Amino acid sequence: MAESMKGLHRTHRCTEITNANIGEEVTVMGWVQKSRNKGGIIFVDLRDRSGILQIIFEEADVKAEGFAKAEKLRSEFVIAVVGKVVARTGAVNENLATGDIEIRATKLTVLSEAQTPPFPIEEGSKTKEELRLKYRYLDLRRPDIQRNLILRSQAATIVRTFLAEEGFLEIETPILQKSTPEGARDYLVPSRVHPGNFYALPQSPQLFKQLLMCSGYDRYFQIAKCFRDEDLRADRQPEFTQIDMELSFVDIDDVIDVNEKLLQKLFKETIGIDVALPIQRMTWQEAMDRYGSDKPDTRFGMELKNVSDVVKGCGFGVFTGALENGGSVRGINVKGQGAMPRKKIDALVAFAKDFGAKGLAYLCIGEDGSYKSSFSKFMTEEELKNLATSMGAENGDLLLFAADVDKVVYDVLGNLRLEIAKNLELIDQDKYNFLWVTEFPLFEWSEEQKRFVAMHHPFTMPMEEDLELLETAPEKARAKAYDIVLNGTEIGGGSVRIYQNDVQEKMFELLGFTKEEAYERFGFLLNAFKYGVPPHAGLAYGLDRLIMLMAKEESIRDVIAFPKIKDASCLMTEAPDVVDEKQLEELEIALVLKKKEQE
Amino acid sequence: MAESMKGLHRTHRCTEITNANIGEEVTVMGWVQKSRNKGGIIFVDLRDRSGILQIIFEEADVKAEGFAKAEKLRSEFVIAVVGKVVARTGAVNENLATGDIEIRATKLTVLSEAQTPPFPIEEGSKTKEELRLKYRYLDLRRPDIQRNLILRSQAATIVRTFLAEEGFLEIETPILQKSTPEGARDYLVPSRVHPGNFYALPQSPQLFKQLLMCSGYDRYFQIAKCFRDEDLRADRQPEFTQIDMELSFVDIDDVIDVNEKLLQKLFKETIGIDVALPIQRMTWQEAMDRYGSDKPDTRFGMELKNVSDVVKGCGFGVFTGALENGGSVRGINVKGQGAMPRKKIDALVAFAKDFGAKGLAYLCIGEDGSYKSSFSKFMTEEELKNLATSMGAENGDLLLFAADVDKVVYDVLGNLRLEIAKNLELIDQDKYNFLWVTEFPLFEWSEEQKRFVAMHHPFTMPMEEDLELLETAPEKARAKAYDIVLNGTEIGGGSVRIYQNDVQEKMFELLGFTKEEAYERFGFLLNAFKYGVPPHAGLAYGLDRLIMLMAKEESIRDVIAFPKIKDASCLMTEAPDVVDEKQLEELEIALVLKKKEQE
Repeated sequence: MAESMKGLHRTHRCTEITNANIGEEVTVMGWVQKSRNKGGIIFVDLRDRSGILQIIFEEADVKAEGFAKAEKLRSEFVIAVVGKVVARTGAVNENLATGDIEIRATKLTVLSEAQTPPFPIEEGSKTKEELRLKYRYLDLRRPDIQRNLILRSQAATIVRTFLAEEGFLEIETPILQKSTPEGARDYLVPSRVHPGNFYALPQSPQLFKQLLMCSGYDRYFQIAKCFRDEDLRADRQPEFTQIDMELSFVDIDDVIDVNEKLLQKLFKETIGIDVALPIQRMTWQEAMDRYGSDKPDTRFGMELKNVSDVVKGCGFGVFTGALENGGSVRGINVKGQGAMPRKKIDALVAFAKDFGAKGLAYLCIGEDGSYKSSFSKFMTEEELKNLATSMGAENGDLLLFAADVDKVVYDVLGNLRLEIAKNLELIDQDKYNFLWVTEFPLFEWSEEQKRFVAMHHPFTMPMEEDLELLETAPEKARAKAYDIVLNGTEIGGGSVRIYQNDVQEKMFELLGFTKEEAYERFGFLLNAFKYGVPPHAGLAYGLDRLIMLMAKEESIRDVIAFPKIKDASCLMTEAPDVVDEKQLEELEIALVLKKKEQE
Repeated sequence: MAESMKGLHRTHRCTEITNANIGEEVTVMGWVQKSRNKGGIIFVDLRDRSGILQIIFEEADVKAEGFAKAEKLRSEFVIAVVGKVVARTGAVNENLATGDIEIRATKLTVLSEAQTPPFPIEEGSKTKEELRLKYRYLDLRRPDIQRNLILRSQAATIVRTFLAEEGFLEIETPILQKSTPEGARDYLVPSRVHPGNFYALPQSPQLFKQLLMCSGYDRYFQIAKCFRDEDLRADRQPEFTQIDMELSFVDIDDVIDVNEKLLQKLFKETIGIDVALPIQRMTWQEAMDRYGSDKPDTRFGMELKNVSDVVKGCGFGVFTGALENGGSVRGINVKGQGAMPRKKIDALVAFAKDFGAKGLAYLCIGEDGSYKSSFSKFMTEEELKNLATSMGAENGDLLLFAADVDKVVYDVLGNLRLEIAKNLELIDQDKYNFLWVTEFPLFEWSEEQKRFVAMHHPFTMPMEEDLELLETAPEKARAKAYDIVLNGTEIGGGSVRIYQNDVQEKMFELLGFTKEEAYERFGFLLNAFKYGVPPHAGLAYGLDRLIMLMAKEESIRDVIAFPKIKDASCLMTEAPDVVDEKQLEELEIALVLKKKEQE
């Protein structure tokens, strides 16, 4: 039976009580973490959001009736306890914030009884995630998940307070929007008032935040829900949260400046990490050349080296063939791994092939300076030596080479570098390495669509010095776009936007749109631009991933209160679900299920 | 042509410059509000989010090229100006924050030219709302709308900061949820991964915030987007924003206490209004008896009086008939309006009939004490006099009476009271009268469904002293529910929730649900309650309406950046819209348009 809390008023959360309160009467409320009877004394660990507090029930204090109730306590019962704070009689528990005190209960109220949960409520649960997500309301009781959500809440508060102080206005943009066929797949919402018409859930507030700049709001931000109906990868959710911002009358440095201050404050005030400013900047080209990635993990070295010049005239056809096809030969030096067993090297070759390599050339240098190599027979001793020297190799090192078009070489070596660092545990997990990557290419060539597509989006400003390239060699034009990378993960990105009509029209032309098509898709923004538009730029962070990195979690599901699984369903509520036929009738839509038809 | 802002760096927003800056060189950027050439000097009013600043272009300062550009400036051009702050040479403009200074421009950069806008960008626009919403990006430039959105942003920041300090965690609940047939109509989102299944957009985070209490989060809040697919009234939007909160281990007074502090801080720090605490509390019954409304406007009197006892034995059948049918006779005293012309009284009678009255009885008292009445012939002079006395009438007053079942009497007089106060301008528009309305009925009888429906929602706790009434006379049971009312508008409401299984089951039984039906609808919450649930309570504010009242606007569309109109469409983006057939195919749905079929 559930008792009433009438007349009871909580005085403290569990760990708000310290030895400074010894002698005071307190009232605490929470969940029974565990309960045990030891020689006629009942010890209860009481749990709330703040942590654990030990309660002692002795019949002399709590009377027969209270003691009888205490004897029946089980895990997850919700109780209120009135009692006196005393120094702990047993050994001090160093693991608890309240380890040197305990409460001698004088009154016990059982607010809610509990069935035995399907899995124990404990730190770092080993229970299968599926079961935990089905009972998410119990999983959310675990202290580690609670810490994550508390961190997330604190982070959001800090971000908002900082941005408000910097003159940003938080402005809500609509969730029920118009569908734009560009980009990822939209979630659609049928309109009942306008049958046959649909809203779309926003993939980002991009167009609206640019409109707000046109409207003179100067500095906008929003912690915004965004939606993408994609086939889900491990770290994606159908709905996700962005810290989204846009600024008027600014250039790249202004955006970077305010965001560096934001990151510094955020990391200091939540997880106590000092972010040294300014954060390192690197062009996209340099990032690719040194790390084979546009989001390099700079917590360790093992950088790529371009050895194309060194192997140019050699006898190894794989190398020279790649060069003749306009590609390059690059390598990484895995220090001290010259004795890596053949089996492990083979695994790396297989890994490389997954990323598009036709193969992976290796050169093992023994402690005695001897070479063991997949390609030594094609090269002279001197060629091999030159190659080793150009890679800064020492005795005992392992050199790995990829030879292909640049894109493949970058991809293979960039990923190989990460794989090896993981395998060899080369990464200092206490480091938080930030990096700005700048000067992204403006366009990517889409083989599928046989046209240029915008690498960031069609409103991204080209670099001023590259404006002429739009006419002559658009594939070489660089964008005023930037990503912020943390430990090899892109946590945010943005760009300076085009605000000149002629540049915007050129962009659409290069993207293969007619003027009519451009207006059909982005008409309200293009029209807005006709009435006076300020230079503006912005940036958006993926909040889920940012918090995941701050909390050192492996999955964004551990930093989202009610996440969905890979098939975009919720195991707890069983959403999505079938709905009443009447609801569909009102929307004037019907199901046309392919599976059913085939049956 | 749009010039680049390279080398330019804004030093101030327009009104950040004061006479303390005289002599300094500044760089300002913004929109041309107006521009005029007066005797070879060009005067430009420059506008940004902060306000207006006067710029002076003289050829001697800005050179021939700059002056030529300045001559071409038109409204809404976006410009950057470098210049010197000087004391205003002409008359000081008292209407401007910067009215005693001006900028003598030395450099002009035209960042963006502008077409003539379809309507002038000005305070309190008289332009038709339809046109303004079509060009919302221009409408949003108006200083009054900008003030509203700045107020909204400030209010959100204050609310969040306050709640964070009070130990609330902001936790995001899902937008893609499961459809629950109870309540208003859901917006549905077809699932592509699970064809034939749908998500629903949340009408409120109610179930999730109660789950968070079960999970031990103790204090939750969220400024949350909510959705209702209803036929829209003037002050409704398909998507709206709630300040939503829930607290564990609390009773009504705890919720009221923290919210009073919140309102006090919010109104003081945004619009400088002192909210005296504690805020007045009134039971639902008292509110109905005194004001005929569960959201009384207490800025003026004209309270209802129950005269049933006074007219009990009188000769006026309308009065006695109502009493015999279990109803009541109540009146309001319109002070000093005894000489109201018959035509105006007739209009009030018609108004009353709109609210279900069969008629409206009136008694005009002349300055000489004479009576003119719709029912004087049915009553003795003494009965009339007693009636007048019981209404506290003096010479020159107008008394209006309704006689019917209580519900109709309350509704008629409650609305009449507001109508008369509006007509006679009795309301002090500078007052902010807050009121808690408490002890709402637990149930309403639904004639349509022939069953009780929950007045708040099925999880609302009955008052402890009324628990027995659930068995004997549930219609008399009162709920631990409360509304917060400001100037006659409900700005928020909430309740203490049921946390005992037996009470919850009784509630569902009274609401006509079988246990199976209850679990089908609310299963995950009911299951969560089995594993230890704390007493909890919550409240939610309608943010749009709250800001509307703070900004003294008439429509919530004036405090929403991108509102929709009554038919739930957006005039600017033309959402909702048709989508590609391919999108529907992927979702395995088809249109079955009724209109088309009929054609």
